[in-house]
Amino acid sequence: MSFEVTKPLLDSIRTGVSEGRDSAVEALLSELHPADIAAIMDRLDLDDSVYVYRLLEGEQAADVLMELDEDRREDLLASFTSREIAEDVLEHIDSDDAADVMAELPEEKQREVIALIDDVEQREDIQELLTYAEGTAGALMAKELISVRADATVARAIVDMRQQAREVEHVYTIYVVDKDDRLFGLLALKDLLFSPESTRTLIKHICETDVVSVRVDTDVEEVVKSMKKYDVVVLPVVDDEGHLVGRITFDDVMDVMTEEAEEDYQLASGISEDVDASDSPVAQVRARLPWLLIGLAGGILSSQIIARFEGQLRIDPKMAFFMPLIAATAGNVGVQSSAIVVQGLASGMLEGVNIFARLWKELRVAVITALVCGLLIFAVNFALDQTQALTYTVSIALFTVILTAALFGTMIRSRSTA
Amino acid sequence: MSFEVTKPLLDSIRTGVSEGRDSAVEALLSELHPADIAAIMDRLDLDDSVYVYRLLEGEQAADVLMELDEDRREDLLASFTSREIAEDVLEHIDSDDAADVMAELPEEKQREVIALIDDVEQREDIQELLTYAEGTAGALMAKELISVRADATVARAIVDMRQQAREVEHVYTIYVVDKDDRLFGLLALKDLLFSPESTRTLIKHICETDVVSVRVDTDVEEVVKSMKKYDVVVLPVVDDEGHLVGRITFDDVMDVMTEEAEEDYQLASGISEDVDASDSPVAQVRARLPWLLIGLAGGILSSQIIARFEGQLRIDPKMAFFMPLIAATAGNVGVQSSAIVVQGLASGMLEGVNIFARLWKELRVAVITALVCGLLIFAVNFALDQTQALTYTVSIALFTVILTAALFGTMIRSRSTA
Repeated sequence: MSFEVTKPLLDSIRTGVSEGRDSAVEALLSELHPADIAAIMDRLDLDDSVYVYRLLEGEQAADVLMELDEDRREDLLASFTSREIAEDVLEHIDSDDAADVMAELPEEKQREVIALIDDVEQREDIQELLTYAEGTAGALMAKELISVRADATVARAIVDMRQQAREVEHVYTIYVVDKDDRLFGLLALKDLLFSPESTRTLIKHICETDVVSVRVDTDVEEVVKSMKKYDVVVLPVVDDEGHLVGRITFDDVMDVMTEEAEEDYQLASGISEDVDASDSPVAQVRARLPWLLIGLAGGILSSQIIARFEGQLRIDPKMAFFMPLIAATAGNVGVQSSAIVVQGLASGMLEGVNIFARLWKELRVAVITALVCGLLIFAVNFALDQTQALTYTVSIALFTVILTAALFGTMIRSRSTA
Repeated sequence: MSFEVTKPLLDSIRTGVSEGRDSAVEALLSELHPADIAAIMDRLDLDDSVYVYRLLEGEQAADVLMELDEDRREDLLASFTSREIAEDVLEHIDSDDAADVMAELPEEKQREVIALIDDVEQREDIQELLTYAEGTAGALMAKELISVRADATVARAIVDMRQQAREVEHVYTIYVVDKDDRLFGLLALKDLLFSPESTRTLIKHICETDVVSVRVDTDVEEVVKSMKKYDVVVLPVVDDEGHLVGRITFDDVMDVMTEEAEEDYQLASGISEDVDASDSPVAQVRARLPWLLIGLAGGILSSQIIARFEGQLRIDPKMAFFMPLIAATAGNVGVQSSAIVVQGLASGMLEGVNIFARLWKELRVAVITALVCGLLIFAVNFALDQTQALTYTVSIALFTVILTAALFGTMIRSRSTA
């Protein structure tokens, strides 16, 4: 359970790999979960990682591959032949993972691999999944699911399910469809296993028909919201006509939640592309520079405005001492205000609350905040025995800038995200 | 599925409530999921909300209660008698939700409610759950689970399970324990339902023994990590001696993930307490003011430092024009750098990467960024035909401040969170 990638373990594996002692490396990995092996491989250099991967077999290898960091997986896949991908990898993973793997390949290799898939159904499933736009339920779903006909008897349904269950690793729910494959209801395994119904009962009489589903073109953000709201472990996906075409499981939704949270956090921190600590310095600069340049442009503009007051500054340079303080406070207040709006919108708490109501509330927050900060800076300057002109000017400037920043922060986010 | 709380719907409900037309209100709610009814009640004022709640019955009412916004639920609970809570609410919800409800009550009412719970097992479960510290697996888990003995036959186990299944709403996994109630393994319902094993096979021969579990005192952050890493829908919780004491389901973990993401986002935005758009202005000020005051203190300090250069400013007030720009850029860069470290630590990507390696990487990022920004401001000042002294000073200052902010941002976060 409490597995951690330690330096001694990494060193042992590196030594084993460099000396070609395969059985020693295998022994070190034998008891580990695929996710843990992947965590180790993420930390090795690429050649060692490939070496370790070659020691794994069949389903375990494929599971490890899917748990790897995305960049590492792409590098690894680049070292495989199309045949290896089609036969050793895709064979052992679900259709949604297969589509993800395919999407990571260059186009030509993608075509090669598809041509090499023997199983017609698998090939068609993957091709279908690749047609859905990124960020939709279709792109997130898997084709593997168990469905039975509403007009089947329990006995008949159990036979059907048993057959389908071989293809599906985790069965959470059994879907019930009508004769045209339209989603009709769902059946909990528990009810089937423990219900006192006769085996001749029709499925449609025992299944739950009040089913939460999403459409193939539903935005993933909506998918996440639905799953969180309705606490379902797996969501059925239907097409325009209501045909059952796939399912989305909680683990995929958790991954999306993590990605979304990271994105929000990065945006709040002024990082515009998806980068992380392991990315190259150049990639990090590319993600960070845009916001800094926007800030610089604003700064240059404001320097031009301040320049108009050069005369005043010449008379009383002390005024300049407080300019960074006022600018920084404005920035801080603006960020806070927009964060409140962003989170309010995300949680649905601000749904239907119009912009004037938001601004009115924010105004009350801002007035209290501005009063506290303004009085504080007044007291400080008074204590420091500054001139009366300076003391008043700085306090009033701070008061005004907090009000302005709070209202602008609220307005900008309300417009851009509402 | 695509339910949204609309203004016309809210208006109809408000009218229905104010005119006392209960059946009209009930008709509006009858087809809705508890989560949707809760979303409506969150938007009504408290009196209307209580009125609507009184129209609901039994399990539906309890489900709606658990889906309400926390603040709203607390207000609603405050209007219930202890007997109502014990008999109408706790009766219909799982032990983890029951413990959450209890934790929201004032201490005296808590004692009253506990004394009114008739079912001894339920009372003990709730009392046990209340003993675990907030933020641990114990505080998150539910006591309801299905377990069978490892040395039971399949036939015997099915009888045992059927009995327990009545108490448990969602069955995802069946746990297998040894004769001392220690976690031994797990059994997928699918395997039980579709396996060709004879009913006289012993459970220990068909169950999976490689089980991911957490301990009662495991931090919830670790629980979230485990669930995401191992893609399990429910985690068993064990005590120090390995006894199975509860289970944590994916929906609770999703809620924790959302809370954590909100917390991170708020901290990144300079909001220190858990507030949202619906909190009172005073609560919002309390959450926002601390960071602003820290910022102000820094600003006052820096104003004192700038004051030492009053002489220079008197000679060339133009220098002051660029002070806000330089201060703001430093702030932006520092926030970016610390965000990269925070996310790297959260994702485990920086595990085992020492601080010097981090600083070295950040230094490379910072040098490129500082060069780009420094040259840009040089070009602008050159174009604006500023004096040579000003042009050089501002560029060098910007270059230096970006390096410093990047390294400090990295160091501070590495120290405080590593």
